[in-house]
Amino acid sequence: MQTELSNRLGVEHAVFGFTPFPAVAAAISRAGGFGVLGAVRYTAPDDLKRDLDWIEAHVGDRPYGLDVVMPAKKVEGVSEADVEAMIPEGHRQFVRDTLAGHGVPELAEGEASGWRITGWMEQVARTQLDVAFDYPIRLLANALGSPPADVVARAHERDVLVAALAGSARHARKHREAGIDVVVAQGYEAGGHTGEIATMVLTPEIVEAVGPLPVLAAGGIGSGQQVAAALALGAQGVWLGSVWLTTTEADLHAPALTRKLLAAGSGDTVRSRALTGKPARQLRTEWTDAWDDPAGPGTLPMPLQGLLVAEAVSRIQKYEVEPLLGTPVGQIVGRMNSERSVQAVFDDLTRGFERAVDRINRIAGRSAR
Amino acid sequence: MQTELSNRLGVEHAVFGFTPFPAVAAAISRAGGFGVLGAVRYTAPDDLKRDLDWIEAHVGDRPYGLDVVMPAKKVEGVSEADVEAMIPEGHRQFVRDTLAGHGVPELAEGEASGWRITGWMEQVARTQLDVAFDYPIRLLANALGSPPADVVARAHERDVLVAALAGSARHARKHREAGIDVVVAQGYEAGGHTGEIATMVLTPEIVEAVGPLPVLAAGGIGSGQQVAAALALGAQGVWLGSVWLTTTEADLHAPALTRKLLAAGSGDTVRSRALTGKPARQLRTEWTDAWDDPAGPGTLPMPLQGLLVAEAVSRIQKYEVEPLLGTPVGQIVGRMNSERSVQAVFDDLTRGFERAVDRINRIAGRSAR
Repeated sequence: MQTELSNRLGVEHAVFGFTPFPAVAAAISRAGGFGVLGAVRYTAPDDLKRDLDWIEAHVGDRPYGLDVVMPAKKVEGVSEADVEAMIPEGHRQFVRDTLAGHGVPELAEGEASGWRITGWMEQVARTQLDVAFDYPIRLLANALGSPPADVVARAHERDVLVAALAGSARHARKHREAGIDVVVAQGYEAGGHTGEIATMVLTPEIVEAVGPLPVLAAGGIGSGQQVAAALALGAQGVWLGSVWLTTTEADLHAPALTRKLLAAGSGDTVRSRALTGKPARQLRTEWTDAWDDPAGPGTLPMPLQGLLVAEAVSRIQKYEVEPLLGTPVGQIVGRMNSERSVQAVFDDLTRGFERAVDRINRIAGRSAR
Repeated sequence: MQTELSNRLGVEHAVFGFTPFPAVAAAISRAGGFGVLGAVRYTAPDDLKRDLDWIEAHVGDRPYGLDVVMPAKKVEGVSEADVEAMIPEGHRQFVRDTLAGHGVPELAEGEASGWRITGWMEQVARTQLDVAFDYPIRLLANALGSPPADVVARAHERDVLVAALAGSARHARKHREAGIDVVVAQGYEAGGHTGEIATMVLTPEIVEAVGPLPVLAAGGIGSGQQVAAALALGAQGVWLGSVWLTTTEADLHAPALTRKLLAAGSGDTVRSRALTGKPARQLRTEWTDAWDDPAGPGTLPMPLQGLLVAEAVSRIQKYEVEPLLGTPVGQIVGRMNSERSVQAVFDDLTRGFERAVDRINRIAGRSAR
């Protein structure tokens, strides 16, 4: 499964795997794909350094990348405390009431909130980059708009390709103007931040808008058939995130969450502002329902919502409060029905891809090979 | 582009085209696809008879089908007048105010409303079937649930395949239990009534749920690449509706609407209850915005909403009141940028399909043909 982009990066299969877990990222690259470590949760540079060291020791000289979250709009001279002060008391009370209604325990004294919004702030992302550029990363992806020009320049100096997510052709054109090398077309059905245009429509639209710039298709892809479909749409590869969450190498720190993911159907996600203030697809839970309920206070804009709920989300995860427990995940969750190794997922993808190609050749009346 | 289903129906290409226009249906079948005439607007049996006669005279012995709208739930002994009486006066006033706010003229005295909801009632659909079964239709599709058992039996007696639309695997299984022959997997991005699961996820899910029953993929398909993608997902064909609306054979009776369709981007549709009371994708207009506005009265359940707005929609269309003027259409509207003949659309689909197959073979490292 080779395209110009996969050849350029020296990987066997044009399958890009985004994951917050170093063990998953390394396993994806070892399996012949391109693992991309999500850096957003690393608020301490040493933690990121430790995990990149681990990848280096386990990736076997295969290429890999890093994904950061740099907001497109720069907010100058505003501290986390300034932002905290903008959160209305009524919203804070709603968080306390919702948690109390489900008997969610407090964190212990001095215990840090595991889920932090600070990774979303540009300064934190820049610190992550300072660490990452000491490692031989081959691709730097940004989940919110194009990264700043100096970051793009710094990446290019190091021969690091820059990728950015786009939910519309307009976003994709902006990325091209900003000197981005790879556009990830993130369809409606994808996990995390997503627009309203589905992968089937979005992928060719973005390919036509920015070609010959390479485009990766994201959203709704978890089988070899879906990989074949995305490549038929003109993508130079696929970008998969959700499907790795239930691999044996993933460590969600919450067995109840893994169980929920394995049990969920494709209709059990919702595109909600509950987590960050921008629409992000995630498991539908009583927590997202509370925020999406017209009778409630509603969500706050980014970055306020993320700050508001950070500690609550940590508590829900730590105590595995099932009705409230969720995670960003795409509609493909309906297909994630067993815990398997990354290699097993990969074998399934490549075999399914070959079968889909056989099928399409039969339909086209061609004898292939 | 041949599958078991297209061979069974004796068509050259596994492309099914749904359209309310006889000239489009006949042109699709003549071009080597399978034209399906939407019957919902035919409240008078003689009108349907006249148009089926026209198709017979112009289809050149190629096969074609009919699409009806039979609600899954039967409502016994309720007349249109009974249903009309259930509509709150506040909602009627909202319609009058919204039309007045845009200066929409009244219909002339005695002038019938062109857009009728009565086609949605089972008795009307049964009258349509009485007419249609006198013609050599090869497929009968139903847009709302499985048709009643006696209708399925009547179709099968005449060697007519029965198709039904589904937005989830659960719907699709119900169709199989009801003896349906073909399931149309209608993705989120499709025009008209649609669920929330996108084509990329829905198609393989339904194929796995009801296989070996043939599945057609619908939603987001308007190019040969998208046809190839849908077939890679396991579909035995594609079901296209929106793309024919801007063909030269289509007659929208409103040049302003054609202009709006040609100008619209993929982000200019909305899944709204404004037209029928159930979520249906359509052009986003000031009319849909008014119904979707939390400050307004909101929509009524099916069939009340359809009855409530029928005359208003006719007036908006007749007088081409641009800000309010819309139509059911899918996200593929972003690709409908020129008026072309059905044959030109078809040539584009088949050529694009071949190119997509070439591409996927190159990526798979195969030398095809």
